[in-house]
Amino acid sequence: MTHIHSHSTPSPACCPASPIRPSPAPQHGMHSLEVWSQSIEPGGATPPHRHDCEEVVVVQAKAPLMMHGTESRFRSGDTVLLPRNDVHQLINTGSGPLRLIAPFSMAPVQVELPDGTPSALPWQ
Amino acid sequence: MTHIHSHSTPSPACCPASPIRPSPAPQHGMHSLEVWSQSIEPGGATPPHRHDCEEVVVVQAKAPLMMHGTESRFRSGDTVLLPRNDVHQLINTGSGPLRLIAPFSMAPVQVELPDGTPSALPWQ
Repeated sequence: MTHIHSHSTPSPACCPASPIRPSPAPQHGMHSLEVWSQSIEPGGATPPHRHDCEEVVVVQAKAPLMMHGTESRFRSGDTVLLPRNDVHQLINTGSGPLRLIAPFSMAPVQVELPDGTPSALPWQ
Repeated sequence: MTHIHSHSTPSPACCPASPIRPSPAPQHGMHSLEVWSQSIEPGGATPPHRHDCEEVVVVQAKAPLMMHGTESRFRSGDTVLLPRNDVHQLINTGSGPLRLIAPFSMAPVQVELPDGTPSALPWQ
């Protein structure tokens, strides 16, 4: 068991519209589960992308969110289930920051663009 | 992609001290990732248990929490990394409800007591 203090895991200097803090999984014996804490600024977005693993997005606040070209209204605790290689893009169409918890069935998480091109993560 | 509305997934009538709402994973194409939304009342606790998969506990509010016989002070966003078959028990030693998000690298999640005895979940 490892207790990770959120304030001791600074967000990498990346992704200005959607900073990500990953759980430091592999160095603590975690090989098939990683969790990201992510915040998307108003108007901010992730690029369209996919992962060769499953993902669940847990929305932390009431907010509108665009996914798959459709805007939906989310409430705190709502989840989005993303099967393996489901291409997705998160767009915060609201007026406040959109906080998300995103677990993945892979560690370390790999990101690919829709055409399969690997997308680098700044902490890898 | 499936959007699960939190208010449409009632908590099963179980576990009075620590109600759990699981993501309905397998019926939506999720086979290696399940996420529980859990709340532990003050003084409430889970039994000591383990899973044959990895788990991350994401604490949603500032609270004291007893794990592995040691009380730690958690802040919102802190995480606990639990490798496969790590026996654990969560005890809310605080004065308010303790809300947790708990992803697992298994779907559906199975629970075992420390000696390996399967423990039934009310929705299985």
